[in-house]
Formats: sequence, C-alpha cells, structure tokens
Amino acid sequence: MPALQNDTLIRALLRQPTPYTPVWLMRQAGRYLPEYRATRQRAGSFLALAKSPTLATEVTLQPLERYRLDAAILFSDILTVPDAMGLGLYFADGEGPRFHNPVRDAASVAKLFVPDPSRELRYVIDAVSEIRRALNNRVPLIGFSGSPYTLACYMVEGGGSEDFRTIKTMLYSEPALLHRILEINARAVIDYLNAQIEAGAQAVMIFDTWGGNLSHAAFREFSLAYTRRVLAGLKREHDGVRIPSIVFTKGGGLWLSDIAASGSDAVGLDWTMSLGDARKLVKDQVALQGNMDPMALFASTDAVRTEVARVLADFGAGPGHVFNLGHGISQFTPPDSVAALVDAVHALSPAYHDGDSVPR
Amino acid sequence: MPALQNDTLIRALLRQPTPYTPVWLMRQAGRYLPEYRATRQRAGSFLALAKSPTLATEVTLQPLERYRLDAAILFSDILTVPDAMGLGLYFADGEGPRFHNPVRDAASVAKLFVPDPSRELRYVIDAVSEIRRALNNRVPLIGFSGSPYTLACYMVEGGGSEDFRTIKTMLYSEPALLHRILEINARAVIDYLNAQIEAGAQAVMIFDTWGGNLSHAAFREFSLAYTRRVLAGLKREHDGVRIPSIVFTKGGGLWLSDIAASGSDAVGLDWTMSLGDARKLVKDQVALQGNMDPMALFASTDAVRTEVARVLADFGAGPGHVFNLGHGISQFTPPDSVAALVDAVHALSPAYHDGDSVPR
Repeated sequence: MPALQNDTLIRALLRQPTPYTPVWLMRQAGRYLPEYRATRQRAGSFLALAKSPTLATEVTLQPLERYRLDAAILFSDILTVPDAMGLGLYFADGEGPRFHNPVRDAASVAKLFVPDPSRELRYVIDAVSEIRRALNNRVPLIGFSGSPYTLACYMVEGGGSEDFRTIKTMLYSEPALLHRILEINARAVIDYLNAQIEAGAQAVMIFDTWGGNLSHAAFREFSLAYTRRVLAGLKREHDGVRIPSIVFTKGGGLWLSDIAASGSDAVGLDWTMSLGDARKLVKDQVALQGNMDPMALFASTDAVRTEVARVLADFGAGPGHVFNLGHGISQFTPPDSVAALVDAVHALSPAYHDGDSVPR
Repeated sequence: MPALQNDTLIRALLRQPTPYTPVWLMRQAGRYLPEYRATRQRAGSFLALAKSPTLATEVTLQPLERYRLDAAILFSDILTVPDAMGLGLYFADGEGPRFHNPVRDAASVAKLFVPDPSRELRYVIDAVSEIRRALNNRVPLIGFSGSPYTLACYMVEGGGSEDFRTIKTMLYSEPALLHRILEINARAVIDYLNAQIEAGAQAVMIFDTWGGNLSHAAFREFSLAYTRRVLAGLKREHDGVRIPSIVFTKGGGLWLSDIAASGSDAVGLDWTMSLGDARKLVKDQVALQGNMDPMALFASTDAVRTEVARVLADFGAGPGHVFNLGHGISQFTPPDSVAALVDAVHALSPAYHDGDSVPR
C-alpha cells in the first residue's frame, strides 16, 4: 500500500511527533455546506444519500475540497447497525431518526441478531472502499460507529429522547434485559468496525453520544464496559499498519480517567473540560481530541481565531492533540468560519510542535 | 420567632449533626401530582397559578401533605425576574416559556433595570409570607432564583434552546454586552433573594440550570463570577437566624472545586458525579445536595429503594448531605415512587448518622 501523503492525524492519535496539530471536525460533511445540501437534494432523502456509496463518497470529500482538513470521516448514519438488525430506520419530517420496531421487551430482544457487515451493511463497506479510492491517500479516512449504549438508547426509545425515560426504566427495572441488548450491540459494533478497517478505514471512532446521560455508576456498567469490549475486539493493525481508535463520550469529562483506561488510543472531549487539566489526568495514556465550543463558529473570524488559540494553548506543547470541536458542527455554521478555524489551527499550532517535526 | 419543628434541612446545609438525612425534591410541587394538576386547571394557566400567592401557597404545601418531606420550596417560575424587567413572559401552547421582548442588542440591554421586589415582584414576596404562615414552622421554606447566566440564557434566546446559539454568539462576539446583562441580573437576583429572605425564606437556592452548556473558561467568566457576586450580596442571617444558601449547576461536576469555593453553604449535584468523590474533593467546605437520577423513579419501588441506598452509601457517614434528585422530578413520575423514595431515605439514613443526633 502506498503511504499516506498526510499522516499527521494518525501520528497525533498515536502521540507521535507532528509538525503541527492536525484538525478535522465532527460532522464536517454536513448541512452547513451548500454543496452537501445540493447532493442531498439530488439523493431525495438523507437515507438515500447515506445508502448510496457513490453519493456518500461525494459528500465525504466535499469538505476536503474547501478546507485543508487533515482527515476525512466516513459519511454515514449512526443508526445503520440497528437498521441492519431489522428495526426499520426512518426519518419523520422535521424530526430526528425513528425506528418502526423499537426494542422494549424480552420478545423483541430475542429477535436481535449480529448483522453480517458484508450483507446487511454492504452499502457502508462499499462506501469505505470507494472513499479510499477517491481519497487516493491524501489524508486518512476515519470509520465510525455508535457505542453499544448509544445505539441501545435509540433502539429502546425508538428515536431521540429528552429524558431517556424508556431506556432508563429498563436499566433500573430490568437491567439483565438491557445487558442482553448491549452484548449483541457490542458484537455487532466489533464486526462493523473491523469490516470498515478491512475495507480501508485508517482510524476508527466510537461515538458514545448519550453515555453522558447516565449516572456515574450506570455509565461504567452499561456504557463503558461495552465500549471496552468493543475496543478489545478491534483489529489493531491492517496490512501491517496501526489503526488508531478514538472514543468520545459527550459529557464524559468527569469519567475521563476510566475512559482513558478503556483501551483506546485517543479520547475525544467536549468543551466543558480544559484540555490542559485532561492532559495532566491522562498523562501519556492517550491522545486527546477536541474541544472547541461549536457555537464559537458563530462569532467573527477574529473571535474564531482567538478561540483556536485558546484551545491550542490549553493543550500546550508536544504531540498527542487532534484539534476538533467538542461536538458535531451546527448546520447553521457559516462556512467561512470553518475556513478561519482550519487556517488558524495550521498557522498557530506549529509553535507548539517545535522540535516535533524530526522524523523518527 | 418560634423555632422550626423540623430543622434537619437547615442543620444539614450547615453541616451540623442530624439524626437522619433530610430529603426534598426539586420541582416537588409539580405536574406529577394530580392535586397540582387540579389546582393548575382551576387557575386557568401556569402563569395565573404562579402569580397568585394563594394558589402558589396551595401547591407549595401539596407534596408535604402526601410525603414526609423535610422542606418546602417556594412554588414560582424561574423567569419572574426577567418578566419583571418588562420582557413579557408567556407560555406558548405545548412549548416552554417565551419572551415577547428578548434582549439581543445594546438598545434592549440599555432598557434593562433592576426590579423592585416589593413592586414588580410583589406577588412572589406575598407568596413567601403566605406560605410561611401556612407552614406554621413544620419545615423550613426554601426560596430560589435562577442564576444570572441562566436568566440571561432565556432573556437572550427568548425562550429555551437546544444549542444556545444566540447567547453564545453574543458571548463570543460581544462579551461586553453579555457582561452588562449579567451585572444587572446579579443585582436583580440579590435584591430578589434578599426580599424572599426578609419575607420568610429560611434557605435560598440558586439554580444555574444552563451553566453546564458553557466551556470551562466561559463558565467561570460568565456564570460562576456572577453567582459568586450574588452569594456575596445575600443576607446571611435574618432575625438572628442563619439563612443557608445552595448553588446548583446542572452538568457542573467538573467545576465542583470552583463552585464549592464560591461562597455558598451547599452545592447541588446531578447524578453524573459520585457523592463520595465529590465529598473527598470539597472536604468540609460545603454540604452536598443530591443526587439520584430522577429516571430511577420509573422503576419498581424495590429498585427505588436500592437507588436510595446507593446514594446514601455513596455519601457515607456523617453530616452534610441533603437527599434530593439530580434534577427536577419528571411530570410523568408515579407518585407512589416518591413515597418509596422519601420513606427509604428516612428508614435507611439514620445508620449514617450514628452519634450525630446529640443536640448541640
């Protein structure tokens, strides 16, 4: 395999020296880009877009045409896995994702199965291959999955939720039932991410979007335990090349020590925790990814630059930082703000890498 | 003034010995109670209910008739203060609170003023007096206000928000403008809480409901700095009796050390942080209030009891714990679950207060 032209992301995730801090943005291929909205309109619906490898490739590459980003991330939906389990994903008008067949009792849990990525999730795996070909080794491609708990939230609630009452009722009343769902989800996520790796994903990220809604005790039992199981089941290498992993629990700052010990190479952080404090806590255990408030992108480009400078200074000198937002970029973000962010990271970060750029 | 018949809440907030752990619930006078829904229907609207001292007294006392709670909390709306500033509070059908006149530019900020509690907020102060008379010293009455930042969120957004885009745009683009709003809010909250204290509130709580949406740096600058200012301006005594204060920042666990040093007697915690860990961190600085997941009340009464036991054990032996949920009780909560919670706290907590019950 030819080497990556830009491997700063991979090196930073492995806490190796880089000449600057690599940057990508969660949901970087998304509605804030007019070209994304055009492709989506052509596709007819979000699901049609996500299920077409060719269109998924097109939108995955769009932000790279505009900005000097250091990584691509697979364009896909977080709910592909439960959809492949037969839950029937759909998008109600103006609302978020919903499932026709939510999983709320022993009978529906008994029907769950671990999808075969080469069959039920073929369209995702094909997208990974097609994106890799289109990227032509410019930057690495990040694959991803929802965490077992986050997938379970949607599966049990039947969609998004404000209070997660349905899954928490199950958690507190019938914990064994929830554990069965989580066990199946963990096996499904392992197979799914490993298939992405085999198809060409050069790093993988686990989004534990809803883990932060749990109590400190429940988080460890129902979310982190299964994320750890996924990490233990992941291929760490493909074709002789290390495949780094990232775990991101929104709202998980209080649990950072435990998350950092779960076996991933890097941990994503939202904007509520200082990267400097986080670094002191995790020491050399993991790289850190984050953590600018996405709402700072609604300020002037000068203010964007100030915030970028603040985040870089907060992490400080040395390797192991991947610049990102602390959450997915808002659909209302002015595209020029993203240019200001990416340029500022590339302009300001070399100062924090003096002496890092020596090749090993 | 005659002494309180049950002063366990006040003593626990001041970290003095008590024979058991006192318990009350955020939003304990609320929609989960059929008698509350009946009074509200009689009132015609939520605002009519909140603005009638007699009806506010009625619903404040309702949960005390059902449960052996150790405190009453003033029934009122969190947005009384901005409403008194002329923003025009209303409730759209099926939605949350809204303002007719949100505050988004220098011109509207210039019009803000510090309301006189004895005039524009007379109905709240009258409610405090009337509730005190009705309580007849059974248990203490807690007064409350939103924090300056939380009030500003509603004032700038014009209502609730998912991403707080409008206030954050102001925060990152025109921080001086937001500081002016916060300064006025802080003075208004001081006057408002001191008027509640003079009318009979025996403890006060500051709800920083939205502080948790800020970055670690912005939280200190735009929320905590003004909460601290409020605490510094509060009457600490009334009629020779100490008036303890409680600060609750939802999602603020990561910032607990700073919050605990802000000058309050107690800090509320949501369910994401272990009370035991929190106690190690704050040592003897403050009492702690919380922190059961409100969703645990949807499980069986056995499970409720298990969660109560877990929270009590987590805090451990000794004074300084006020049992509460980690957030307001859900409107869908079965009332019997609350009975199970309150009974479990009273039944299980004396074991953690061996030797505490000696009167001073």
